[in-house]
Amino acid sequence: MKSRTDRPLPTVWSRPGVSGGDGLEEAAGSVAGGVPPMVRLDGVAVGPGIGIGTIYLHDTGLSPIPEYRIAGGLVERERLRLAEAADRAIAELRALGSKVRALSDGPGEELACILEAYEQMLRGSRLLRGADRRIGEYRVNAEAAVRVEMTELIGAFSAMDDDYLAARIDDIREVGRRLIRNLTRRPRQPGLTTVPRGSIIVAEELSPADTALLNPRLVGGLATTLGARQSHTAIMARSLGLPAVVAVPGLMRHAGAGATVVVDGASGAVILNPDPETLSWYRNRRASFLRTRRSLLRLRDVPSVTRDGVPVHLHANVELPSEVEAVSQSGAEGIGLVRSEFLYMNRDSLPGVEEQAEAFRTLIEHMKGRPVTIRTLDLGGEKLGDALDIKAGANPALGLRAVRLSLTRTELLRTQYAAILRAACHGPARILLPMVCTVDEVRAARGILNEVVASFRAEGQALPDPLPPLGVMIEVPAAALSADALAREVDFFAIGTNDLTQYALAIDRTDEAVAHLYDPLHPAVLRLIHFATGAAQAAGIPVSLCGEMAGDPRLTALLFGLGVRELSMAAYAIPAVKQRVRRITQDSAREHAHRILGQPDARHIAALVDSFSGG
Amino acid sequence: MKSRTDRPLPTVWSRPGVSGGDGLEEAAGSVAGGVPPMVRLDGVAVGPGIGIGTIYLHDTGLSPIPEYRIAGGLVERERLRLAEAADRAIAELRALGSKVRALSDGPGEELACILEAYEQMLRGSRLLRGADRRIGEYRVNAEAAVRVEMTELIGAFSAMDDDYLAARIDDIREVGRRLIRNLTRRPRQPGLTTVPRGSIIVAEELSPADTALLNPRLVGGLATTLGARQSHTAIMARSLGLPAVVAVPGLMRHAGAGATVVVDGASGAVILNPDPETLSWYRNRRASFLRTRRSLLRLRDVPSVTRDGVPVHLHANVELPSEVEAVSQSGAEGIGLVRSEFLYMNRDSLPGVEEQAEAFRTLIEHMKGRPVTIRTLDLGGEKLGDALDIKAGANPALGLRAVRLSLTRTELLRTQYAAILRAACHGPARILLPMVCTVDEVRAARGILNEVVASFRAEGQALPDPLPPLGVMIEVPAAALSADALAREVDFFAIGTNDLTQYALAIDRTDEAVAHLYDPLHPAVLRLIHFATGAAQAAGIPVSLCGEMAGDPRLTALLFGLGVRELSMAAYAIPAVKQRVRRITQDSAREHAHRILGQPDARHIAALVDSFSGG
Repeated sequence: MKSRTDRPLPTVWSRPGVSGGDGLEEAAGSVAGGVPPMVRLDGVAVGPGIGIGTIYLHDTGLSPIPEYRIAGGLVERERLRLAEAADRAIAELRALGSKVRALSDGPGEELACILEAYEQMLRGSRLLRGADRRIGEYRVNAEAAVRVEMTELIGAFSAMDDDYLAARIDDIREVGRRLIRNLTRRPRQPGLTTVPRGSIIVAEELSPADTALLNPRLVGGLATTLGARQSHTAIMARSLGLPAVVAVPGLMRHAGAGATVVVDGASGAVILNPDPETLSWYRNRRASFLRTRRSLLRLRDVPSVTRDGVPVHLHANVELPSEVEAVSQSGAEGIGLVRSEFLYMNRDSLPGVEEQAEAFRTLIEHMKGRPVTIRTLDLGGEKLGDALDIKAGANPALGLRAVRLSLTRTELLRTQYAAILRAACHGPARILLPMVCTVDEVRAARGILNEVVASFRAEGQALPDPLPPLGVMIEVPAAALSADALAREVDFFAIGTNDLTQYALAIDRTDEAVAHLYDPLHPAVLRLIHFATGAAQAAGIPVSLCGEMAGDPRLTALLFGLGVRELSMAAYAIPAVKQRVRRITQDSAREHAHRILGQPDARHIAALVDSFSGG
Repeated sequence: MKSRTDRPLPTVWSRPGVSGGDGLEEAAGSVAGGVPPMVRLDGVAVGPGIGIGTIYLHDTGLSPIPEYRIAGGLVERERLRLAEAADRAIAELRALGSKVRALSDGPGEELACILEAYEQMLRGSRLLRGADRRIGEYRVNAEAAVRVEMTELIGAFSAMDDDYLAARIDDIREVGRRLIRNLTRRPRQPGLTTVPRGSIIVAEELSPADTALLNPRLVGGLATTLGARQSHTAIMARSLGLPAVVAVPGLMRHAGAGATVVVDGASGAVILNPDPETLSWYRNRRASFLRTRRSLLRLRDVPSVTRDGVPVHLHANVELPSEVEAVSQSGAEGIGLVRSEFLYMNRDSLPGVEEQAEAFRTLIEHMKGRPVTIRTLDLGGEKLGDALDIKAGANPALGLRAVRLSLTRTELLRTQYAAILRAACHGPARILLPMVCTVDEVRAARGILNEVVASFRAEGQALPDPLPPLGVMIEVPAAALSADALAREVDFFAIGTNDLTQYALAIDRTDEAVAHLYDPLHPAVLRLIHFATGAAQAAGIPVSLCGEMAGDPRLTALLFGLGVRELSMAAYAIPAVKQRVRRITQDSAREHAHRILGQPDARHIAALVDSFSGG
């Protein structure tokens, strides 16, 4: 989390307690009170800048049910709503019943009994009666009444220790849920592709697939209840240059669709319903942030060299094709990492050669001769839906994923190779294999590449000249520690510090229980980087570094000193890193790195990094 | 998997296909055929020796339902059994009904409808009628008839895409299951503590908790359908010295309770109903195996020193107190690793100071002055049941576990420290912290130890003199790579090669999809070991090695050459390793290790290891 804003904010903040209650009363109070009060919540800042806009509530199924207080005169109307929702549910049950009876060979007989039981429940069991009573007694909306009643019923059942009863809880939940769905009449929410311009997305959680659908031209920022600094979603938010705050307790309880919100990507604050003074203060900060960014952008056409003239190549990472504009504006010398996973998201089938080739060609042509490094699929098989029928192991991060999956289901790799070969006819491309651990894997992957090339030749298909170089990610400790052997087999390295840190420290950076232990400045990580750059230099192959560290200007001198001469990062980060490159000298950076490498205590390393003045 | 038996077996094997069918016909056929045919199945050998005995089928809830063919004259009797089981289920439902009605505030109203629906289902819906018909038509036992009918019903429901129906499948399953339970009248199976002497345990899967209950005096071996060479259960089987074969497809389909079975812990074969010739061949092999083991045991009182007189200390690992006899017989110089997890298994509450102290004291007294190293809890919080209310993250192996958990829920650590301090008054003990990554963790853990010691003093409780040394496992790459910093903070190291390999290679060794990539001879692992032993030597602290590698005599020279002078392994492995120690010399081992360390290709390393003659 970055430091708090430096000058005190002009208003008294009503900071909500993060109590364990269901929040019903609190939320109801705020709605009943007319002008909603300003609320400041604190989370973890993960995306740059200040977002100011209108809340777009994204329902991920986890978000709470709308709950509010109703005026005394509306009690009867609310009861009627509940009764209507129950009627609709009964009608649905009956429709289902006829569907079931129509089944040949009558397997629906069992079901008929159950459906009848449900219908009975909907006609006036304790769930319905309790909810009805609650509307009048507590003056809450019907959804809230159903939810609370359901929770109490389930609680009473859970207390009895019996298998039958445990299974019945699902029945109650199912009936309650259908009631609430009918009350809110929420159809499946459309994707995030078409939100109103200037929306700030607020959600319990955003999956990478959700984030992939975000249109950075329409979205002004995002805030979520869950998430962590190093979660994939956070990385994507940074990569889109979106102001973003995650891990904000109480967010969904206080956020109302359509309300004004400020997302402070520097301090991690989320301010709901800001008062005019606060709003204007944040508008000034946003303007100043954008001015700084513009001034950095003036560095676009300035070369990235140290004060003493050593070039440091700055490339951009691309998660999504939509970033390609930002890449051009950033002054990137190439795309150091195309994460091909975007091709596999939000779909049921696997993308074919044609489709992938087209996507890669667009990127390559856009870069006008600057190199594009395409990483083959870096997902677990279980993420590919039904297409492969692969179940996740107990620890997916240590399982059948990335190159392991590509070498097991070689059709995946062949398709990607063929697509890259076709696209590379339109400009320079490189192929990057993720999660390699052994020389055997490289040999197997190269063997398949040779086969695909041979089949292109046999079929008379055009091939790029020269053929794309084949490189590997150094992101597993085993790869870094045997980088000398790998360097003899491949054309280039790309050090992935995110996973390298994760595996070296055995920390799942997306697991909130341990994310605070994730530390890319752990001496182990720096030693692994140093070993890998040394092995690459000895073998005379290029090495780049493309984890989150690459985009942090505080670490530029250290990484340079460790031997890195090519960095690949989110496009928005390039200007600030370039500014840093232009201030360091070779000698000072080397000495800085040397001092840090000799320091085996992570805490001292952080202090050394902070104190380094560059020069 | 080890090599197959060297001489061809004397009979023609009927090797069953691993077909996807439900196996009903096949199994029924075998029972109908009088003398059951000999069947050979192949799995992965994980425990040493040959087990010959009577099958004890362990029902883990996953195992199939007893299915057999019945004579024509028994059809009516079988139908009656079914009807009786249904009646019993109805009686159970009614008993449950009164329990529910007795609940205050009537939350049982919903349930009453459901229970009635179930009762109706049990009185003669398609499930019951179909099963009844099936008994007569196919002449199968009632359990089989219910299971098949249930499967068909569920299949028909699954085909319809609706939430309600999906939930209903559970209802059918629940009713079907209760029927089958009543048919087989299987109460919860008693634990594995009291199986008949000479039993070979056959199961779909054994949890570590199941394995922990095995009494090695009664059990002659084990075989399971699931599992992997490096799974915890396999390690425990080795540690108990039990012949064991895991990952045997089709095992449960062919194994009948009470039948004779051979488990070949060398070749991975499981032979059901061996014919007399095969049986006698295997008896000879078993006798020869036991002769070799006895001759190795004669090494018990011989010192463990190299040919040129360098001592290598051989200690035993202890998973379970029941191993302590085997430890004494093995000639172990101490217990190098007590895995304290056994104290937390098969229970709902957490063990207190008293209970833990008692368990540790028993081990310490048994060792009569030889040191006992006790490792603090090495589990994830989610494994501790409801006691801690901790949910597993997406990758438990990279989550809140081991020392991370102990430092988050410090009451766990304080309890264990107090127990060890008390027990250590009866003999020498050492404290070992698992999964340490940083110097900060060590400092925090030592701080808590100091507090517990201070509270002992304040309360006038006896303390051991000297206090137990505090050491760390080197089992995460980050720890190995910053071993120089850790060595300044701790009293000793224990290198855990199982986890070290797992994290260095990002391979979950219990995940069958990637277990074949798990390789402790990867140059990365050897380099990490070498770095850790070097750091320990430089700091002048003892270092032991206690993963599976320690018990493999093929690796003794290599580990010695890497600087290891203390090995801790399953007790049964000690004699063979000692034999190896006594054949090597310092120079030859060092040269061997040096050659291997210079070889960054894992495949060449395996060849070098195999070709090393010792000398």
